[in-house]
Amino acid sequence: MKPTFPPAFEVRPIGVIRSCYTQKFGIPRQPGLVPSAIATLHLDKHFVSRDALRGIEAWSHGWVVFHFHEAHDVKMTVRPPRLGGSQRMGVLATRSPHRPNHLGLSVVALGAIDREALTVELRGGDFLDGTPVMDLKPYVPYADSVPDATGAWADSSRGRAAVTFTEEARAACEAREAPGGGSLAELVAETLSQDPRRAKGRSGSYFLRIGNVDVVARMDDDAWTVESVVDLEG
Amino acid sequence: MKPTFPPAFEVRPIGVIRSCYTQKFGIPRQPGLVPSAIATLHLDKHFVSRDALRGIEAWSHGWVVFHFHEAHDVKMTVRPPRLGGSQRMGVLATRSPHRPNHLGLSVVALGAIDREALTVELRGGDFLDGTPVMDLKPYVPYADSVPDATGAWADSSRGRAAVTFTEEARAACEAREAPGGGSLAELVAETLSQDPRRAKGRSGSYFLRIGNVDVVARMDDDAWTVESVVDLEG
Repeated sequence: MKPTFPPAFEVRPIGVIRSCYTQKFGIPRQPGLVPSAIATLHLDKHFVSRDALRGIEAWSHGWVVFHFHEAHDVKMTVRPPRLGGSQRMGVLATRSPHRPNHLGLSVVALGAIDREALTVELRGGDFLDGTPVMDLKPYVPYADSVPDATGAWADSSRGRAAVTFTEEARAACEAREAPGGGSLAELVAETLSQDPRRAKGRSGSYFLRIGNVDVVARMDDDAWTVESVVDLEG
Repeated sequence: MKPTFPPAFEVRPIGVIRSCYTQKFGIPRQPGLVPSAIATLHLDKHFVSRDALRGIEAWSHGWVVFHFHEAHDVKMTVRPPRLGGSQRMGVLATRSPHRPNHLGLSVVALGAIDREALTVELRGGDFLDGTPVMDLKPYVPYADSVPDATGAWADSSRGRAAVTFTEEARAACEAREAPGGGSLAELVAETLSQDPRRAKGRSGSYFLRIGNVDVVARMDDDAWTVESVVDLEG
């Protein structure tokens, strides 16, 4: 039977994410890679009420369906970083943001819930600050966890890069807190260790903006040295 | 910092699902419960090209982000069948279709891919026939499988109901094929065994339309007897 294709329709964000990642560089390529990354989902009280959150604290993890709001193009093929950036794959065979409808999907650990403020703490996310959220769903282990699923690439997280700090950068981290209150040094180290460079990224100095600080880190021989950590200006 | 809520935007289906479930009654409550349910995603060639599927056969499972196109209302609280239908939970703490934006999310096993016809076979889905699809993504085990995730309810699939066939119904099944070519008896048995009745459903006769047949089945003492299987009229 020949299918009839349904019409377009409008979706309206139920909320927005505030995240320590205010620029694309440094954002983990998948959720769960940077457990210290704590983001907050702010729900829009004009669309969802506090009742909509009743019972959510019973779940350890949740799905966030979001909009890749800074991905403006749709590509039919992309070059996944995991494949060294040299092979083209169909966009529907990847999790690339450059997909039809620009919808993203990430599992996060659910943290503190504030039903009065309509906020949900999301741990281990990979969200750009300001990400519009279309849905929040509980992670239902018996349906969603498929441990025997396989994939030809991205079978496992790629190797972690070593991260060390200069004495000065370490002290600067210890004098500050990560957004959400944790260790800033841990957040910076976890973010760099998953190696946010493009495939075949060059050695040399990189600039990372994270939370309220600017970080300069040097990459040599697959190892990072964090050289400076300074407050954002203004 | 007070969040600014982003504006609504339009999404356009990349395709549509043809499924054996042409009515809501009988649709599995989660994917994976009825492995014999084989559906086909037909992609819209005006939106995605065959290139978009390159490499997808390397993945065993995929996510379908879809539209609950027959759910017309948004509820802030719902009564999950798993809780016996007596407790109200926040809609964002459930996978109910009556959610803001009516977006659904299901993991399926990926079957045959036809890049010329732009079709992808989906196994074990829980889709209503005609479901609009917004996205297809690979299931990336290292990120998506969280076997230690927990939930206070829906921790495990609820008990399966026994299913037997009258001699006549069994013969009628054997004379036909399930959509997709498998055993119709298996498809009917798997669909009934996950007990599609509402919570505290009554005993008595139920009518199930599946693929090209109408099924009458009787429920007594938590066991189903399939009484008749006839072709759809017309």
